[in-house]
Amino acid sequence: MERRGLDEELSRYGRRVARTLESFLERKAHELESVNGWGGDLTERLRQFCTAGKLIRGSLVLLTHDMLSFERTAGVTAPGCEAAAAAYELIHSFLLIHDDIMDRDRLRRGMPSIHYQYQKIVERITGTNGLHEGEGLGICAGDAALFLALELLSCETTAGCGPANTMKILLLWSRELSRVGVAQMQDVFFGTRHKEASEADIMSLYRFKTARYTFSVPFATGSILAGSDTPVTQALLNLGERFGVIYQLVDDRIDLFGEAKKTGKPIGTDLQGKKQTLLHYYLQRFATPEQKRRISEIFRKDRITEEDIAYIRREAVETGAVRRVEEMILKMKKESEKMLNALPVKEEYKRILGEILAHGVTRES
Amino acid sequence: MERRGLDEELSRYGRRVARTLESFLERKAHELESVNGWGGDLTERLRQFCTAGKLIRGSLVLLTHDMLSFERTAGVTAPGCEAAAAAYELIHSFLLIHDDIMDRDRLRRGMPSIHYQYQKIVERITGTNGLHEGEGLGICAGDAALFLALELLSCETTAGCGPANTMKILLLWSRELSRVGVAQMQDVFFGTRHKEASEADIMSLYRFKTARYTFSVPFATGSILAGSDTPVTQALLNLGERFGVIYQLVDDRIDLFGEAKKTGKPIGTDLQGKKQTLLHYYLQRFATPEQKRRISEIFRKDRITEEDIAYIRREAVETGAVRRVEEMILKMKKESEKMLNALPVKEEYKRILGEILAHGVTRES
Repeated sequence: MERRGLDEELSRYGRRVARTLESFLERKAHELESVNGWGGDLTERLRQFCTAGKLIRGSLVLLTHDMLSFERTAGVTAPGCEAAAAAYELIHSFLLIHDDIMDRDRLRRGMPSIHYQYQKIVERITGTNGLHEGEGLGICAGDAALFLALELLSCETTAGCGPANTMKILLLWSRELSRVGVAQMQDVFFGTRHKEASEADIMSLYRFKTARYTFSVPFATGSILAGSDTPVTQALLNLGERFGVIYQLVDDRIDLFGEAKKTGKPIGTDLQGKKQTLLHYYLQRFATPEQKRRISEIFRKDRITEEDIAYIRREAVETGAVRRVEEMILKMKKESEKMLNALPVKEEYKRILGEILAHGVTRES
Repeated sequence: MERRGLDEELSRYGRRVARTLESFLERKAHELESVNGWGGDLTERLRQFCTAGKLIRGSLVLLTHDMLSFERTAGVTAPGCEAAAAAYELIHSFLLIHDDIMDRDRLRRGMPSIHYQYQKIVERITGTNGLHEGEGLGICAGDAALFLALELLSCETTAGCGPANTMKILLLWSRELSRVGVAQMQDVFFGTRHKEASEADIMSLYRFKTARYTFSVPFATGSILAGSDTPVTQALLNLGERFGVIYQLVDDRIDLFGEAKKTGKPIGTDLQGKKQTLLHYYLQRFATPEQKRRISEIFRKDRITEEDIAYIRREAVETGAVRRVEEMILKMKKESEKMLNALPVKEEYKRILGEILAHGVTRES
């Protein structure tokens, strides 16, 4: 399957997730308007915010479901599955809304972040600085998004797929998401740059904050929805972890070596944002004391220059930090291919997953 | 049943909720420690925070369960019910943690609020102002508390009470809690004092932010756990709403007319905090233009004096605002008693609920 074919495949799933989200949020708008004016307004903001995302996680839920149940259901995905996929996207939005408050990010998915939207509203009405109220309203909006996700799951997925499977999904999500919360705490703390992260610290962040949450959980959710046996779900959790760590490592590489023209965002944001990536970690570990001094200086700077980025790029190659990360990626890619081939699914789906994996490694944006 | 008996009854339930919380959080400490050091630390902070509360909501879940299933189960509450009660208390803590960030409250349940605990940790380590990081860590801690609640529910309540009933509970909670989120948005906005709340606005806040969440949901949860029919659950939702609005109205009265010696907290915090209570609303509505001017002045002041409080007390009586609130309380008490008598439960439990209601009306702290 070609890249173009893969994109189309995933977009097709994405559109189904978007439709489910839209009709659910529209229905809830009427109900929440009866509480107060913020209710209907929130559901509209959430609709715009959720559907502006790539809906990758929801799409992976549906792909995995179809992959494991194709023969049994003749390609017809139950509406309960789409509700679970849409619910997971709402949870993803909940996390992004809260993350943007912590990072004070004003832009997300090509639009003002949710708390910043509220900050602007408060400022327009009161004429005073609305940062604190904007953050407060953003916390509430994130919380409400999460409860909307749980309603969608408990109502529509239960109706379509039965309470027992739905409960398994809730158990999976809640276990994984308390870990995401704890990993995010580590990330907030590392943002103060008062403790150097160890290799194990960074890998734990990659596993729990990104990899399992982005790939393992959607895979496992699709697997539960398809009624798979536990060992299959477990195999997909493990496979997802590797997909996700590769994804994060490639992300770090693109952030330093990418071309703004292709990525559509500035280069060196990890340096500027003082993110403790594995690439930065190896760079410091492999550097000579002389290099290390200059690197540390750059890491501490408030404003990173083009020259700083060029220096870090050069040293990342020269010290062997980039090679080390590349080796990790290739090792995990090989492990993933082996795991992928052992899955009890049709060749067609192995090819799709292989494409997702290959694209994850070679992508430039 | 005497007041002393009621206290003992509720404390007995509270201890069971506390034990369930403690053993669950202890078990999770080991697992979350494997993510990073914040994990085990968080579970211990949550244990202290949750068990320092009065655990009223969890106790009401168990009381209602026993009330509706006493004859069938001979007074033995299934462990799955205790897990649901403990999960609801964890959700309550999640909401308090986020509320304290929005209100910048540093004290809760006789200890530093969670985000303030983290702020202090960050400040000790970095030597710089840790307000923003403390708030970020608090948001994560709240989120994690919620997912721990969902795990407790999906794992232990499902095991004890079956997935179908557990899903009904999740549906109830998620529907009610997205309303709480939207009501809280209104509250955050009213905190800016740039819009006068209408009577309907305030009643909506009382219903959705306090009453249903504090009484209706615990009642309905216990009812679902006992396997009651939908009309019984619905009757309890309605009864809980009245209990809760009375509770809030009495709270407002105590805040203005209480004795610090009895309440253990300063008088007039609603005035100081610019809270739009129904008492303040009637006070302004019934006041003459002359009174209204002085009242508005006091509401806008940064620091409320003893004299201001004395003036507001006097005018609240003189304008008839207090009488109006008292009449509402008595009307709702009568309605509640009628609803209570129609419940299909033993006299013993009607007496207990009647005691809770009577205490709610006459309490002075």
